Amino acid sequence: MIIFKNIDYLDENFNWIKNVDITINDKAIQKISSNSDTALDPENAQIIDGKNKVVLPGFYNMHTHVPMTLLRGYGEGLNLQDWLNQKIFPFEALLDADDTYWGTLLGLSEFLASGTVSFSDMYMRMPGIVKAIAETGIKANLCNPCTGFDPKIKYSETESYQDEIFLLDYVKSNPETKIIADAGVHAEYTSSPEYVSQLLEFALEHDLIIQLHLSETAFEHEECKQRHQGRTPTEYFADLGVFQQKCILAHGVYVEEKDLQIIKSHDAVLVHNPASNLKLGSGFASVGKWLDFGVTTCLGTDGAASNNDLDILQEMRLAALVQKGLKKDPKLLSPTQLLQMLTFNGASAQGRTNSGIIKEGFAADLVILDLDTPNMQPIYDLATNIVYSANQSNVYLTMVDGQILYRDGEYTTIDLEKVIFEVNRIKSEKLALLD
Amino acid sequence: MIIFKNIDYLDENFNWIKNVDITINDKAIQKISSNSDTALDPENAQIIDGKNKVVLPGFYNMHTHVPMTLLRGYGEGLNLQDWLNQKIFPFEALLDADDTYWGTLLGLSEFLASGTVSFSDMYMRMPGIVKAIAETGIKANLCNPCTGFDPKIKYSETESYQDEIFLLDYVKSNPETKIIADAGVHAEYTSSPEYVSQLLEFALEHDLIIQLHLSETAFEHEECKQRHQGRTPTEYFADLGVFQQKCILAHGVYVEEKDLQIIKSHDAVLVHNPASNLKLGSGFASVGKWLDFGVTTCLGTDGAASNNDLDILQEMRLAALVQKGLKKDPKLLSPTQLLQMLTFNGASAQGRTNSGIIKEGFAADLVILDLDTPNMQPIYDLATNIVYSANQSNVYLTMVDGQILYRDGEYTTIDLEKVIFEVNRIKSEKLALLD
Repeated sequence: MIIFKNIDYLDENFNWIKNVDITINDKAIQKISSNSDTALDPENAQIIDGKNKVVLPGFYNMHTHVPMTLLRGYGEGLNLQDWLNQKIFPFEALLDADDTYWGTLLGLSEFLASGTVSFSDMYMRMPGIVKAIAETGIKANLCNPCTGFDPKIKYSETESYQDEIFLLDYVKSNPETKIIADAGVHAEYTSSPEYVSQLLEFALEHDLIIQLHLSETAFEHEECKQRHQGRTPTEYFADLGVFQQKCILAHGVYVEEKDLQIIKSHDAVLVHNPASNLKLGSGFASVGKWLDFGVTTCLGTDGAASNNDLDILQEMRLAALVQKGLKKDPKLLSPTQLLQMLTFNGASAQGRTNSGIIKEGFAADLVILDLDTPNMQPIYDLATNIVYSANQSNVYLTMVDGQILYRDGEYTTIDLEKVIFEVNRIKSEKLALLD
Repeated sequence: MIIFKNIDYLDENFNWIKNVDITINDKAIQKISSNSDTALDPENAQIIDGKNKVVLPGFYNMHTHVPMTLLRGYGEGLNLQDWLNQKIFPFEALLDADDTYWGTLLGLSEFLASGTVSFSDMYMRMPGIVKAIAETGIKANLCNPCTGFDPKIKYSETESYQDEIFLLDYVKSNPETKIIADAGVHAEYTSSPEYVSQLLEFALEHDLIIQLHLSETAFEHEECKQRHQGRTPTEYFADLGVFQQKCILAHGVYVEEKDLQIIKSHDAVLVHNPASNLKLGSGFASVGKWLDFGVTTCLGTDGAASNNDLDILQEMRLAALVQKGLKKDPKLLSPTQLLQMLTFNGASAQGRTNSGIIKEGFAADLVILDLDTPNMQPIYDLATNIVYSANQSNVYLTMVDGQILYRDGEYTTIDLEKVIFEVNRIKSEKLALLD
């Protein structure tokens, strides 16, 4: 049992509630009480002083490629095609499951230091990813997104399928796991309709959420329309029946109004990745319009290779600023809307309906921020300060299912020094092979 | 004497030089030597272990209103005019020099925690500002920007003039001060030509750099053209002779090509403030075009009331991302260009030609970043990681003129706890008066 004594928190409407005791028991938020109530203060509890601190729901990073943390900043200053073809793809071809294990651990270290409790990820060499996540204790929805433009390729004969089978077996044989198996289609432009249909059949059979890249660049969006009789990627996937399953759609920079209608009607989720969209020169997503259509919106960092960090707090601030500038509307995207994208919307989209809110009975997936730092003072409206003024240095503690995974710069389940050593070993080995 | 042992640094071309000893003596970088050279290692030196750390030139925040840190997040969710008229102006009218003293100290705390060694500031109630800066030991170029739309107002009868006289007297009677007195014109739309001419006369007499707001919003830019026979704010100030003095021009969101020609030909400096421009819905400055015209470009946070932080590292990353997205060009603004804006360009624009570079003989105005954190690993190109991946939690030490002002979360010249207490006292008092 852990008790946060005399701490503030943000309630389900992101109101600032001051000075309570929050009792964590097993995996859940057991009790939130005014601090005069000392009944829930048994001798064996670990007491954490909450002075000048606030508890928020932990953050959900809803589109990532976490092992790509190995490639942070690699090939900077190239255009997108050269960057992919000359740098990223040749490097990725060299990765094995040991490499994705260490790359994942590096990414998870950054997640925890910036308050992320769960993420939705697309990547390959799944055993390494799963091992790192299981050891760390963070939550994740994983998939290996299928790619295969040749209609003769059979999904069941691919590495992607092997990874998915591994994932399903792992989840089945580890009922306590925090990992959820999703399915994934990389994108319209990297798979044939036949291939997508086989993946869909697989997702239907196992009732899996489907993660996709969608309308990330103008080129991709227009090329799809040329290839498929004027149909957008959203229409293409809708016609194939993909939206029968819950879909998590990354990027959406070029989705049209007709796409938003389809997305809304199927209760699919759009994930906004502003840093990656800007850094790669893809453009500005119209998030205000997504909200006008009532589409559930989340935030993601994308991989560290195109961001170049995994700090979802920065992503929220970037989204807030850029959307206001884009529409010349300082009132667009309220702090409350943004915090909901960061927390509850992500939990809900991942199917984790008992997470994303600080409330009795919910999972203890939370982050604690320090408030007694120059950048967080004074406070007129706490939600505003969290959106625009907080940064990674304010993250004091990150907890998943009641377990402290990060506190005051220290990890409880990750040996950061060893991770950095191994990541640099991998970097050196791969660069030597690529030279 | 302080020696950073076995430390990395970025040289004047932002190349990553590994494993040297850097000796700081009095106010300067006395010696940079390979670490086999132990001659400069006297017994009385303070030795700081540089393992996994890098020294950069300290950061220059080139457009601020630092006492406005008192108003961080105040009046969120209003449009610009309501925000100013209903919230900011009434609050500011209540401030005295004691308030600007504490507000400045809060802002300086945030500057130091994010690596800023010098800033260019426009604000009022100057004695409080100067006292805070003098006690802290940071560098600053200060002005009280004149405002007065009524042509009958005489500059010499204003509070702005009183502040400037105070500033000039202070600088004259404190030859060791790190403060430089600038002059300031708030903007075209808040002053008459007569008033600007009187300010210019004053600036010429005392040979002062002039700080101005320029073409921040489309409304301001177009209104000026209507008021002044089609002339832009830049043309208006040029015709008044303002560019005879070195000018630091903040915002420039709507400067036209003819403006950029004028600015370049007079060797004036443009300061990019992306967070404030976006947050207030002003728009996107075309920084790529500024560089095409060869205009010296710097970065600024603007005040914390419209940002809402003073972290110039975040500002650099935001500038880098937004410009790439705006022009759909992932190659626009290289890490080297951005680091130059953040360091040497600022020092040069402030007239501090012995600062902004890590080189023997230069002033010891520097920041040390930790590299052994998840977000900074691995490193393929260090400049890239600093621009895109570093955050405030990486700032280990900030030094001005050889004096450590911030190290590992602790201040040597600021009592942060007292500052936060006083800032909250001021906040409560003013809110009570405003209710």
